[in-house]
Amino acid sequence: MCSAHPIAVHAEDTASAGEAPDPALVADLVAANHILFDQGVVDAFGHISARHDKRPDRFLLARNMAPGNVTAADIVEFDLDSNPVNAGNRKVYLERFIHGEIFRARPDVMAVVHSHSHNIVPLSVSQDTPLRAIFHMAGFIGEAAPVFEIREAGGDGTDLLISDNALGRALAAKFTEADIALMRGHGSTVVANSVPLAVYRAVYAELNARYQLQAGGLGRVTYLTAAEGRACTNRIEGQVQRPWDLWKAEAARLRAG
Amino acid sequence: MCSAHPIAVHAEDTASAGEAPDPALVADLVAANHILFDQGVVDAFGHISARHDKRPDRFLLARNMAPGNVTAADIVEFDLDSNPVNAGNRKVYLERFIHGEIFRARPDVMAVVHSHSHNIVPLSVSQDTPLRAIFHMAGFIGEAAPVFEIREAGGDGTDLLISDNALGRALAAKFTEADIALMRGHGSTVVANSVPLAVYRAVYAELNARYQLQAGGLGRVTYLTAAEGRACTNRIEGQVQRPWDLWKAEAARLRAG
Amino acid sequence: MCSAHPIAVHAEDTASAGEAPDPALVADLVAANHILFDQGVVDAFGHISARHDKRPDRFLLARNMAPGNVTAADIVEFDLDSNPVNAGNRKVYLERFIHGEIFRARPDVMAVVHSHSHNIVPLSVSQDTPLRAIFHMAGFIGEAAPVFEIREAGGDGTDLLISDNALGRALAAKFTEADIALMRGHGSTVVANSVPLAVYRAVYAELNARYQLQAGGLGRVTYLTAAEGRACTNRIEGQVQRPWDLWKAEAARLRAG
Amino acid sequence: MCSAHPIAVHAEDTASAGEAPDPALVADLVAANHILFDQGVVDAFGHISARHDKRPDRFLLARNMAPGNVTAADIVEFDLDSNPVNAGNRKVYLERFIHGEIFRARPDVMAVVHSHSHNIVPLSVSQDTPLRAIFHMAGFIGEAAPVFEIREAGGDGTDLLISDNALGRALAAKFTEADIALMRGHGSTVVANSVPLAVYRAVYAELNARYQLQAGGLGRVTYLTAAEGRACTNRIEGQVQRPWDLWKAEAARLRAG
Repeated sequence: MCSAHPIAVHAEDTASAGEAPDPALVADLVAANHILFDQGVVDAFGHISARHDKRPDRFLLARNMAPGNVTAADIVEFDLDSNPVNAGNRKVYLERFIHGEIFRARPDVMAVVHSHSHNIVPLSVSQDTPLRAIFHMAGFIGEAAPVFEIREAGGDGTDLLISDNALGRALAAKFTEADIALMRGHGSTVVANSVPLAVYRAVYAELNARYQLQAGGLGRVTYLTAAEGRACTNRIEGQVQRPWDLWKAEAARLRAG
Repeated sequence: MCSAHPIAVHAEDTASAGEAPDPALVADLVAANHILFDQGVVDAFGHISARHDKRPDRFLLARNMAPGNVTAADIVEFDLDSNPVNAGNRKVYLERFIHGEIFRARPDVMAVVHSHSHNIVPLSVSQDTPLRAIFHMAGFIGEAAPVFEIREAGGDGTDLLISDNALGRALAAKFTEADIALMRGHGSTVVANSVPLAVYRAVYAELNARYQLQAGGLGRVTYLTAAEGRACTNRIEGQVQRPWDLWKAEAARLRAG
Repeated sequence: MCSAHPIAVHAEDTASAGEAPDPALVADLVAANHILFDQGVVDAFGHISARHDKRPDRFLLARNMAPGNVTAADIVEFDLDSNPVNAGNRKVYLERFIHGEIFRARPDVMAVVHSHSHNIVPLSVSQDTPLRAIFHMAGFIGEAAPVFEIREAGGDGTDLLISDNALGRALAAKFTEADIALMRGHGSTVVANSVPLAVYRAVYAELNARYQLQAGGLGRVTYLTAAEGRACTNRIEGQVQRPWDLWKAEAARLRAG
Repeated sequence: MCSAHPIAVHAEDTASAGEAPDPALVADLVAANHILFDQGVVDAFGHISARHDKRPDRFLLARNMAPGNVTAADIVEFDLDSNPVNAGNRKVYLERFIHGEIFRARPDVMAVVHSHSHNIVPLSVSQDTPLRAIFHMAGFIGEAAPVFEIREAGGDGTDLLISDNALGRALAAKFTEADIALMRGHGSTVVANSVPLAVYRAVYAELNARYQLQAGGLGRVTYLTAAEGRACTNRIEGQVQRPWDLWKAEAARLRAG
C-alpha cells in the first residue's frame, strides 16, 4: 500500500452548509490553533476541530494550512463522513477522518486535537512504557493510554496516516474508554468536551510525556492511581479557564503586529 | 475523595485587614511573580507569598490568577488559617493553605514558593533518587529533600492538592528540618527568609533537579556533603541580590510594552 | 595528518560562470540558509547548495559565511570539482567538496545540506544505535542511515573535515542507497531533489534523532518498517510546501527589521 | 570551613594602574561578556578575563556584576595576586583568583572563562564519565579533561569557591597539560590565547558535554582520538572569527534598544 495521494487534498462539497456556527466558537477555534502552535504542540502539521454548536452532525476544522496562521475565514464545515460542505476551491486536511469518526463515535466530545508533539512521539514507539498519568495536571490520561497500531487496521506498508473513514473508525475505537490515544510512530489524538479543555489536555499530555521520559531514567516511578487520576481530572480541569485566558492573551499579543 | 470544588474559590473575608504592608515588599512580591514566570518556574499555575512585614500573623498572596500578570492591586492579605481579609469579590487560590500553615509552623520563614517546575516533577515521583544538592548554587537542598506523599495524610484518591488546613499542616511538617519539600506527582514548595531568596531557591532547585536527571544517566555521582551544602548556603546565598537585580530588570523590560 | 589550512579558503576561479541561474532558485537558496539557521539546524557553521538549473555540472553555494546572514549577492557558482567560477576575492567553504562530489555521483540530487544539528551528533558517535526512521515525517531515513567513518578514507588523525575531492568521493559513496549519511563525530549530510525538500529532510532528521535519543532510554522501540518508510516518504514529502511556506514567511518576518 | 565573607567583596587597590589597555581589547572583553550570556554559558554568575596587552603581569576583569550588562567602564585591572589596581569603591568578584593564578602559571594564556554552563555541571560530578572530545568543534578538550576536586586542596566543608590564591594555584595546576578543567559540583574554567577563542571554547565545551550526556544513554561511544583532537584544534580554531563575528553582531543587535 504505497500511497500516491497527497496530505492536502481537494474534496468536493457534498452537502449544503448548515446554519452558521456561533462566532464565539469559531473565535475559540482560531485561538486554539494559535495556542497549540505557540505552545509547541503543533508545528506546520497537526489540527484541532470543534463540533458545530447548531448541528451536532457537523464539525469545524481549518482548511489545509499551518495552524499558527489560521483565521476565521479559513474554518471549513464538514459532515461526519468528513466531507466538506463549504470548502469551495480550498484544499482540506487528508486526515480529517480522525475528527469525523471520533465525533460520530463519541457524542459527548466537542473538540479533537491531533498532533505530533515532541515528547509524545518517543512514547508512541516505546514497547515497554505506556503513557500514564504521572502528575496532577494530567489525571485524564489514566493508568495506560491506548496505542493505535496502524498495522492492525492497515497492514504493513501504510504511510501511518488516517487517510479514510475505515482507518478513522479504527482509531475512534480506541476512545471507548479513553480521552487520549497515542498513534505509533506518528503522534496522538486527544478529545474533550470543549475547545479550551482539548487544548489544555494536549499541552499537559505533552508535559506528562516529558516527565515520564525524564523519570524513567532514574529507576522506579510512582504514578497516579486510578482514583487520583479521576479526582485530579474533576478538580483541576475546572480550572481550564486560567491557562486558556493566559494563552489566548499571549497568542493575540504575538499576532498584534 | 473525589472533589468537586474548584481550584479557584470564593472565600469570605473573616477579619479586617491589618495595617498596609510596606509598598516595597508588595513591589518585590509582584516582581517575584513575574520572575518566576519568566524563569519558567511557574506557568499559569504556582504562587509565591510573603509574610506581612507589620503583622507576622498575616501573609500576602495574589488573588487567583496567572503569576506572570500580577500587579500590586492583585495582592490579597490572609490570616494564618488562610482566610482572606480583603479579598472582597475576588477568587483566591485553593492551595493557599500551603502558605498559611508553613508561616504558622516556621516563624523564621518570610516567603514561600509553590510550583510545578519541569525538572522537579520527575524527581518527585522517583522512588530511587531523592532531590539532593549536586552543585554549589543549591547547597540549601541538603542531602535528601523530603517528599510529601499525600496518600499518607489524605489516603488514596485525593486530587493531590493542598485543599485544607489539615493537608497544609501535614505538608508544613516536612519543613521541620528542610527548606524545600517535593510533593509527589505535583511539584515542590520552597521557603526562605526573604522574597528574593525564595525566588533564588526555586530557580536553582529546578536547575539542581535538571543536573541530577542528566548526571543520573552517566553512572555514579558525587554530591555535596552536608558540610559543603552548609558552606555553600552561607556563602552564595549572600549573593542573592545579583541575580535578583538582573531578573527584576529583565521582568520590567519585558513588561514595559 | 595535522592540517594547517583553514576552513575558509581562497580558491582561484578556474572556469567562467555559466548562464545566470533562475533568480527564484537563488531566492530559495537564500531562504533555505535562513530557515536552517532559524530552525537550529545550522549555527555559524553548516551549508546548503543547489544544483544550477541551467547547467547540471555546476552548483550554487554561499561564500564562506554564517548561513543566517546570506544574501543573493553571496551565492557563488562552482563546478563539480568544487572549484569556484565566480568567487573573485571572496573566501569559500573548505568543505565544498561534499557538495561537488555528491552532485557528480547522484544526478537526481538537486540540493545538499551539511550540518551539525544537535541531536544528530550524538547518534553519529553511537556504536550501537544507527539513525533509523522512527516516525512518519522522516520515512526517507529508512532502516539504518549509513555512517561515514573518516578513518576508513583518511586514517587516524584527520580533522574530520571533507577537505578535498578524495574525501568528498568517499562520502558521496555513502549515498548510493541512501539520502542521508551521518558523519562520525561531525554531523550529517542530506540530499533531495529540491531545495525545500532538502531543508525539510534536515529539519525532520534532527527531530527523528531527538526522538530516538529519548525513546532509547525507555527500552525497546518500534521503528518504521521499510515499506512504511517508503509509503511515508511518498505521501508526506508531497506536503513539503506547507512547512516551507511557513518557515520562509517566518524567516522573512524575522529579517524585516 | 564555613565561610562568612560574600562572593562580591571590597578589595583595596594595592598598586597603581598600568598604561591603559588597547580599547579594542576592552571592547572585545565587553562583547565576550555579552556573548557568553546570550549563548547561555553564564547567567548572573560566571566571568571572563583578558591579560593586559601592555603589561603581561596584569589582567582585566569586570567588577562584580552580571556579565550580560558589562560596559567598558566596568572593566577593572588586577595584578597577578588578583589585587585590583583601580577598583576604587567598586566590589570585585570573590573568585578572581581563578584568573590571576592561571595567568601566572600559563604565560601563553591570554583569556580565561569561568562558568557553570548547564551540561558541564552534570559531567563535573560524574564519577564514571570524564568530559572528552566527542566532535570536531571541541577537539581542544582532548581525551579526558581534568576534574578539580576541591576537597583535595580545601578539605571537606568548603563552599566550592576559589576564594584565595592557594585555591587558585591548586586549580591552575590542572592546566599544565589541559586548556579546560571541570570543577566538581561547580562548573568549569577554560583558557585560550585570545578572547574570541576562549569564548568559542566555552560555547563548544558546553555542546560537547551535551552530546556526551545524550550519547551516553545509547551505549558505546566513539570519541575523537588524540590525533584527531589535535588536528581539529589546529584546523577549526582558525575559524573562530566566523562565529565570533556572528555572535558579536547579535549581541550588539540585542542591546541596540
